[in-house]
Amino acid sequence: MSLNSIFQYFVPKDKKFFPLFEQAGANLIDMAKLLKENVNTTDLDHRKSLSKKLEDLEHVGDNITHQIHLELGRNFITPFDREDIHALASSLDDVADFIHGASNRMQLYQVERATDPMIELADLILEATEHVAKALFELKDLKNIRNITDSCVRINSVENKADYIFDKAVADLFEYEKDAISLIKNKEVLSAMEDATDKCEDVANVLESILVKNA
Amino acid sequence: MSLNSIFQYFVPKDKKFFPLFEQAGANLIDMAKLLKENVNTTDLDHRKSLSKKLEDLEHVGDNITHQIHLELGRNFITPFDREDIHALASSLDDVADFIHGASNRMQLYQVERATDPMIELADLILEATEHVAKALFELKDLKNIRNITDSCVRINSVENKADYIFDKAVADLFEYEKDAISLIKNKEVLSAMEDATDKCEDVANVLESILVKNA
Amino acid sequence: MSLNSIFQYFVPKDKKFFPLFEQAGANLIDMAKLLKENVNTTDLDHRKSLSKKLEDLEHVGDNITHQIHLELGRNFITPFDREDIHALASSLDDVADFIHGASNRMQLYQVERATDPMIELADLILEATEHVAKALFELKDLKNIRNITDSCVRINSVENKADYIFDKAVADLFEYEKDAISLIKNKEVLSAMEDATDKCEDVANVLESILVKNA
Repeated sequence: MSLNSIFQYFVPKDKKFFPLFEQAGANLIDMAKLLKENVNTTDLDHRKSLSKKLEDLEHVGDNITHQIHLELGRNFITPFDREDIHALASSLDDVADFIHGASNRMQLYQVERATDPMIELADLILEATEHVAKALFELKDLKNIRNITDSCVRINSVENKADYIFDKAVADLFEYEKDAISLIKNKEVLSAMEDATDKCEDVANVLESILVKNA
Repeated sequence: MSLNSIFQYFVPKDKKFFPLFEQAGANLIDMAKLLKENVNTTDLDHRKSLSKKLEDLEHVGDNITHQIHLELGRNFITPFDREDIHALASSLDDVADFIHGASNRMQLYQVERATDPMIELADLILEATEHVAKALFELKDLKNIRNITDSCVRINSVENKADYIFDKAVADLFEYEKDAISLIKNKEVLSAMEDATDKCEDVANVLESILVKNA
Repeated sequence: MSLNSIFQYFVPKDKKFFPLFEQAGANLIDMAKLLKENVNTTDLDHRKSLSKKLEDLEHVGDNITHQIHLELGRNFITPFDREDIHALASSLDDVADFIHGASNRMQLYQVERATDPMIELADLILEATEHVAKALFELKDLKNIRNITDSCVRINSVENKADYIFDKAVADLFEYEKDAISLIKNKEVLSAMEDATDKCEDVANVLESILVKNA
């Protein structure tokens, strides 16, 4: 129990952080939707414009992170430990990086057509970001600990599914893809996608650690 | 010095966490033994059954982590900071993931025969988990700081050896393996093994940071 | 606000840590200079002797980290939270590991001639370590928060540039390099270099988190 958690019984909690985290969550969902659209198109011009939009949303996310840091500088009393707010903002940033990274690799490596496991992973990334956004929405009211815990459990379960799809896809590449360079390309795109779900799990870990501290 | 560490002079320490960490340590040793058996067999059926057992032990580990979280929710007074208990449980989980991952990749990529450096790395992983288990066993009595520090030093030394073997093995692959896909396969299995020792080093870092805080 | 930060208003701050962090920063600059020399030579004997020097400096860095830990054991009052001193020392260690790793891979994989993007990345690594060293130098006087924040912003900007160069270089490899093994070699060296700038960003994150806590 930190001094911070003693103070929070006497001082009204600052409410500025919660809307920012909600925005960050909503932005991740938007990014995941663009990635999903990206893997479902074969129109290269459309894909280029989707990649551009994804990059713009990554900058929106960077701005939200920056706002959170400005608020941390301004507010003496924070709703929970300053370093947890910092860790949460960083982990959300990482999710955005890998969603953008997956789309970026498809572009850079000139992957012409997304494979089935890429499409499945994009679906799972969208699902994971939806649970992340839901947990962030509940964060303002720590009475709903069960809801946040539920979202964390679901994020972990999505990440397990993504692991399984990734493993199977890579095993198939090793079994059927005889062109080594093409194998590497596909593996790297799949890997960025699987990393995006890993980073959602990191968000869940930070959230769980916040719950544990403030239990 | 946190309020927590003041409280611990007045309140009997809760003893529920230590047996759980001891179980986690023992489970890692069991997993490392199965991995060692795995790299030393060429009987594919036996390997499949070893992989299955490893997966079961990974679930045992997940259960222990879950128990630790339940205890964190129940206990107001913890033997050291709640976030450190959380970090320690997570880092032990990561070790289990990579030991299982190494065995999983051998299976998925259909690596028929483990190479010498794989066998050496499996030995080092077992050695590292033994030091991890020893440090966790000593944790209940922070008077034995020197023993814990010793184990951490040994884990770091095992990790250095693993680094060296990994580097040499990869250099040899680049020099002698002319089939690119086979090179990637071998490199990925070696890499999961080396990551397992890296994660043991992360456990050592968490332990050192706990010692530093409670010094 | 931790008890630590209350104490620091009454107790003179211990000054032993700051010179050690300054040494760590200076050592990273020296390592980055050797890496830069390394990518700019084609004389294999000279490269071997540069690699040896880099390894020696990595050990110098390990010694500084060890000194910091010894001081943590000795000093009850630290200038900021013990775990932050620990995290900062670890993150500096990681930068050293990847600078050495990049040079090591060039040696192990027998990369004969560094490519243009490798040379550009080595320049950026040097730039990043200079900003890291500057921030560490300012750390002793938390009144200069703006200077530290400035260095952190610059480190992030260098990391973005490195990302861009790395992405472009890998895209070019996939477009023009038809030999898969040579593609992997080049990609791995580039990747260690890009990781070195990532680790500088991690240092910046730790620094920002220290500023946030002590704001």
